[in-house]
Amino acid sequence: MTSHPQKTGNRAAVYSEPGSLKTEIKDLPVPSPGPGEVLIRLHYSGVCHTDIAFCLNEFPNQAAPTKRGQVGGHEGIGEVVALGEGVQSTSVGSKVGIQIAGDACLSCDACLVGGETSCSSLKITGYFTPGTFQQYKIAPARYVMPIPDGLDMAAAAPLMCAGVTVYTALKNSQIRPGDWVVVSGAGGGLGHLGIQYAKAMGGKVIGIDHGSKQQFCRDLGADEFLDFAQFQSNSTLARQIKKLTGGGAKVALVCSAKSYPQALGWLGLRGTIACIALPEKPGSFLPDVGTMIVRELRIIGAKSGNRLDMKECLELAAQGKVKPVYQLRSLDDLTKTFQEMESGAIQGRIVIDLKPRL
Amino acid sequence: MTSHPQKTGNRAAVYSEPGSLKTEIKDLPVPSPGPGEVLIRLHYSGVCHTDIAFCLNEFPNQAAPTKRGQVGGHEGIGEVVALGEGVQSTSVGSKVGIQIAGDACLSCDACLVGGETSCSSLKITGYFTPGTFQQYKIAPARYVMPIPDGLDMAAAAPLMCAGVTVYTALKNSQIRPGDWVVVSGAGGGLGHLGIQYAKAMGGKVIGIDHGSKQQFCRDLGADEFLDFAQFQSNSTLARQIKKLTGGGAKVALVCSAKSYPQALGWLGLRGTIACIALPEKPGSFLPDVGTMIVRELRIIGAKSGNRLDMKECLELAAQGKVKPVYQLRSLDDLTKTFQEMESGAIQGRIVIDLKPRL
Amino acid sequence: MTSHPQKTGNRAAVYSEPGSLKTEIKDLPVPSPGPGEVLIRLHYSGVCHTDIAFCLNEFPNQAAPTKRGQVGGHEGIGEVVALGEGVQSTSVGSKVGIQIAGDACLSCDACLVGGETSCSSLKITGYFTPGTFQQYKIAPARYVMPIPDGLDMAAAAPLMCAGVTVYTALKNSQIRPGDWVVVSGAGGGLGHLGIQYAKAMGGKVIGIDHGSKQQFCRDLGADEFLDFAQFQSNSTLARQIKKLTGGGAKVALVCSAKSYPQALGWLGLRGTIACIALPEKPGSFLPDVGTMIVRELRIIGAKSGNRLDMKECLELAAQGKVKPVYQLRSLDDLTKTFQEMESGAIQGRIVIDLKPRL
Amino acid sequence: MTSHPQKTGNRAAVYSEPGSLKTEIKDLPVPSPGPGEVLIRLHYSGVCHTDIAFCLNEFPNQAAPTKRGQVGGHEGIGEVVALGEGVQSTSVGSKVGIQIAGDACLSCDACLVGGETSCSSLKITGYFTPGTFQQYKIAPARYVMPIPDGLDMAAAAPLMCAGVTVYTALKNSQIRPGDWVVVSGAGGGLGHLGIQYAKAMGGKVIGIDHGSKQQFCRDLGADEFLDFAQFQSNSTLARQIKKLTGGGAKVALVCSAKSYPQALGWLGLRGTIACIALPEKPGSFLPDVGTMIVRELRIIGAKSGNRLDMKECLELAAQGKVKPVYQLRSLDDLTKTFQEMESGAIQGRIVIDLKPRL
Repeated sequence: MTSHPQKTGNRAAVYSEPGSLKTEIKDLPVPSPGPGEVLIRLHYSGVCHTDIAFCLNEFPNQAAPTKRGQVGGHEGIGEVVALGEGVQSTSVGSKVGIQIAGDACLSCDACLVGGETSCSSLKITGYFTPGTFQQYKIAPARYVMPIPDGLDMAAAAPLMCAGVTVYTALKNSQIRPGDWVVVSGAGGGLGHLGIQYAKAMGGKVIGIDHGSKQQFCRDLGADEFLDFAQFQSNSTLARQIKKLTGGGAKVALVCSAKSYPQALGWLGLRGTIACIALPEKPGSFLPDVGTMIVRELRIIGAKSGNRLDMKECLELAAQGKVKPVYQLRSLDDLTKTFQEMESGAIQGRIVIDLKPRL
Repeated sequence: MTSHPQKTGNRAAVYSEPGSLKTEIKDLPVPSPGPGEVLIRLHYSGVCHTDIAFCLNEFPNQAAPTKRGQVGGHEGIGEVVALGEGVQSTSVGSKVGIQIAGDACLSCDACLVGGETSCSSLKITGYFTPGTFQQYKIAPARYVMPIPDGLDMAAAAPLMCAGVTVYTALKNSQIRPGDWVVVSGAGGGLGHLGIQYAKAMGGKVIGIDHGSKQQFCRDLGADEFLDFAQFQSNSTLARQIKKLTGGGAKVALVCSAKSYPQALGWLGLRGTIACIALPEKPGSFLPDVGTMIVRELRIIGAKSGNRLDMKECLELAAQGKVKPVYQLRSLDDLTKTFQEMESGAIQGRIVIDLKPRL
Repeated sequence: MTSHPQKTGNRAAVYSEPGSLKTEIKDLPVPSPGPGEVLIRLHYSGVCHTDIAFCLNEFPNQAAPTKRGQVGGHEGIGEVVALGEGVQSTSVGSKVGIQIAGDACLSCDACLVGGETSCSSLKITGYFTPGTFQQYKIAPARYVMPIPDGLDMAAAAPLMCAGVTVYTALKNSQIRPGDWVVVSGAGGGLGHLGIQYAKAMGGKVIGIDHGSKQQFCRDLGADEFLDFAQFQSNSTLARQIKKLTGGGAKVALVCSAKSYPQALGWLGLRGTIACIALPEKPGSFLPDVGTMIVRELRIIGAKSGNRLDMKECLELAAQGKVKPVYQLRSLDDLTKTFQEMESGAIQGRIVIDLKPRL
Repeated sequence: MTSHPQKTGNRAAVYSEPGSLKTEIKDLPVPSPGPGEVLIRLHYSGVCHTDIAFCLNEFPNQAAPTKRGQVGGHEGIGEVVALGEGVQSTSVGSKVGIQIAGDACLSCDACLVGGETSCSSLKITGYFTPGTFQQYKIAPARYVMPIPDGLDMAAAAPLMCAGVTVYTALKNSQIRPGDWVVVSGAGGGLGHLGIQYAKAMGGKVIGIDHGSKQQFCRDLGADEFLDFAQFQSNSTLARQIKKLTGGGAKVALVCSAKSYPQALGWLGLRGTIACIALPEKPGSFLPDVGTMIVRELRIIGAKSGNRLDMKECLELAAQGKVKPVYQLRSLDDLTKTFQEMESGAIQGRIVIDLKPRL
């Protein structure tokens, strides 16, 4: 029932120079769980744009600079290997996931209405506490997500942030069977999950991305695909969307920040823009309030989800309705992965394999 | 069961020169109700900023110029005096209200989800069909709102648009008992109802307006009042709101278009801006998307409400929880009233008395 | 734009002796649509237990005896062949469906909250108005449901009542991805759709029925199947359900009236019994109120759905997520079909083929 | 930051002979808070019928007999006097309330959907843990409810169970402004709060009770009052309710167990019975399933509420919209109070004054 702290044996990638994308491999101690905590042997960690934002000290409204030596990452999947005092909600050997909300108080005003991601004492994994780019991690038992049977552990990693974020955004956009959803950045890490969750929830999907991603998006279930490079202007693209959807989409799931200036034009009456992609600089989005009122539009900021959202999101994947597409990489390749993600070159999601080398 | 159409006897104010605020009194025929319609003897009509927008041809996304000779107005209260063929849902002598949605099909995709105000065949009262600045009006029986017993007829007029708009905005903002609501333009026609509906729904209210409106707002139930002229900058005002509310409001009910650039700063985590006031020109509102995502904020365009919203809104007033404040005026004073409203000088709401002069 | 009424040419089955299951084939006139109505050439009609209840004068709380010569049926699929005056919401050639709610006022208190099926002026198809066991039928345009592209017309018939009833019951039971749903009568007309809608909505399903239906239910997606004949008592069955679900189901979808006395025992904390099957005689169900309070259980009466529910239900089927299983029969076989349904022998649903014989 | 455990000084009433209503005053030790806990100096405790049920070992589905020496009570109001290790969510001197849910895990399936009252590790105050019939009590910080400013401490006591139960039942019944609510047992501890919460939420109320409670109920806001003794039969009472409400109530809030056999007859189409009063013996309630289906009725078991419900319930009282009516008694009078409650003689609620005698 107890773990034995060790001075070494925990291979980790740390942010060696926050402000740059540099990372360094370290051999850290294996920590020991305190009361209410568990020790997890991580097998996989997804890599998210938010990791890059923290590594570069560019997260919006970031409270303080990221510490040198921070272990990043917040899409972790592993196995419980030791329990701290008093833990009853999980057991050694359970497969579990770690998300960006590393802990929430569950009692503040935000938590009481299900807004754990805006908890007044929120602990951000990979920024406030050590993240998932390492082999061993401590976590509070109440914030460890059970991974349902039948779900591939590596595939589950991207769901811990990318998946739950698009799922929750769609849920909060109140889509109904038959509603049209436009996914911008449809072939990327967020977008390719957005297509699949929208379909699993009964929606119909238009994917927007480079033409090179068309087949990928259609294979994932997109009913229509639009190559943005083929449209001379924002208004011709908007016109095509309105034609395909019979008047405009119910939801624009913005997974590419470049789409913000255009997305309002894609919506039908009473439509919703779900803001997911973090813009590179502040202030880039200018809605026309008159249009928003007259057409009854909504814009919602969408960030991760609470534990219930997470559970539902994992469940749909365990039922085979959503299949994250990922490439496995080694922890040594983290900086290179960050760089490729910055350039927009990656299809699907990158997952770091944290299992020991044979 | 039938009415007798008359060539004259229906005193009306018409927009004699759309693009200006000019109106003219005319003696129009008394119309006769067709199948499914009723004839209403109007007693009162509220005057709304949207009337001014149509009179000036400045309504956002306005489909076509307002016709010369249009009878405006969309906050009408009167009595049913004749029934067209097949009408069973109301009876002669019933007190009824007319709202900005003059008719909706009740069958299109928007209507099916309760979005009657975005019906694909929406008929706007006072723009598409003759409005309530007249003594007699035809309306489809299905779009005539019963006025509950115990509600003063003149007081009911401002509820037909101003009231239902703020009520529906608060309802769609999902306020809960104890949530803080900031009302900008708190002493105006929309704002003074916003204060009262927020209180009736269990909210706590900060009113923002000129200092001259402080006592008025407090008498209506505002828990706090802030005179915007006393704050040197947007950020000192925002700071004061965050202090009073313990971190920021749940809802900013923007009833003064000048507040759009500031309102995001008034919100706590997971807060909502309800856009109500029509801005004078497009494009004046610039949210920071990064902040919206990180703080999980929402912006909703709020326009009137459906018949259920209207029924609930009237019911709360009939229970004495909301008391519209209004001044009675004559139909002859319509242009003068428009001008005073433009200058922002009016406290509460103007209601035109359409009953015959003795 | 008008149809030409004909004295004959409309082959119909009428209830020739209500109180018995006797039906008779008649050659009726082809009716002509009035204002706001359409004439539909029916291709298919499902057969529902409610038809039997009206034919036998045994519908619960039935207002008046069923008229001799009544045309029953309320699961009709056909094609619009003529439009009455003023109809704009559909067009000649459109594929449409007819449901048990033949018309609703869309304005009464029930309709305003989406409760069209409890409209104060509800017209029940096949009881109050001529039903779908005929080749031509008049219907109000606002109550004609568009059939989405890609949905087989015969397969759509059972969705018009059986499908929308189980879908709406599951929706009102607020199931979430991963929730367990027990379907009793799982292999029957209602139950086999209940399995599929529960799966399409992310649920996990235990089907209960005769052992002979096991393979059928599993093929439709049931995760587990229990043959009620294999359990010695209600409590051993309940124990097995609690074991499979880890404490009890979220929803018991009761599609076999025999299950009412048992279903409360199948539920976990905060579970819901959705009452769908009409019991043969009143008063057969005895919940223990103390248990309902302490375990926070709910019982809901589930009857059909409104037009939005219907649209969503059809949409999920058009996406291929639900495939009604049916046998085609001739109108001449209606009485025989009623008799077989009474005996419980039928798997899936019966659909009458109303197309002309070649 | 630490409390000093004392061997005596904590005056308490204990169940000296569970199975009977006997209680005994004891001088117990003052306990010391562990990690995450607080020590509360209780000022008041309400007395609830559930206390009687536990004292008599008659709580439905009661897991085990109540222990001899158990301190009962679960409507406590007091002041935090010491904090255990790590407590940050409250502070010494804060006014707080204790409810029947003494603790919940906040992580099980029930807790994740807001069903804390059905938590798989629920600790019932006054049964599983020492209750509020004493002067000092330990509680987990996360389950201590802040009492809003402006709310009288003694008045707050009955809200901790009776108040939150009726409030949550009304909320879960989805009442809207203008809906009719029938409150049976309207003058009792639960019912008198039911009247007031229904009014605060915009409802219209019919109170049912002995004629002697008529004035009391009307003073609390009941729009109508029916003396059940004046009706010859259940059906004449039902007929009168249907007449007053124009077809039947939206909600029957059953605060007197004698009403269960009648309440279904009070409802209009789509109405809800909220089961609140615990019946004296199991199996006393027999709904007609056919009627439930055809009229789309619902029955919900209503037990307390979660912390969000509690917060909202307290907030409405702090706004002056609900004023619990209570009599103050001494701890010595507990058995006598139980006896009077059993006889149904008490109007409003009893509150035990736990402050030291001068």
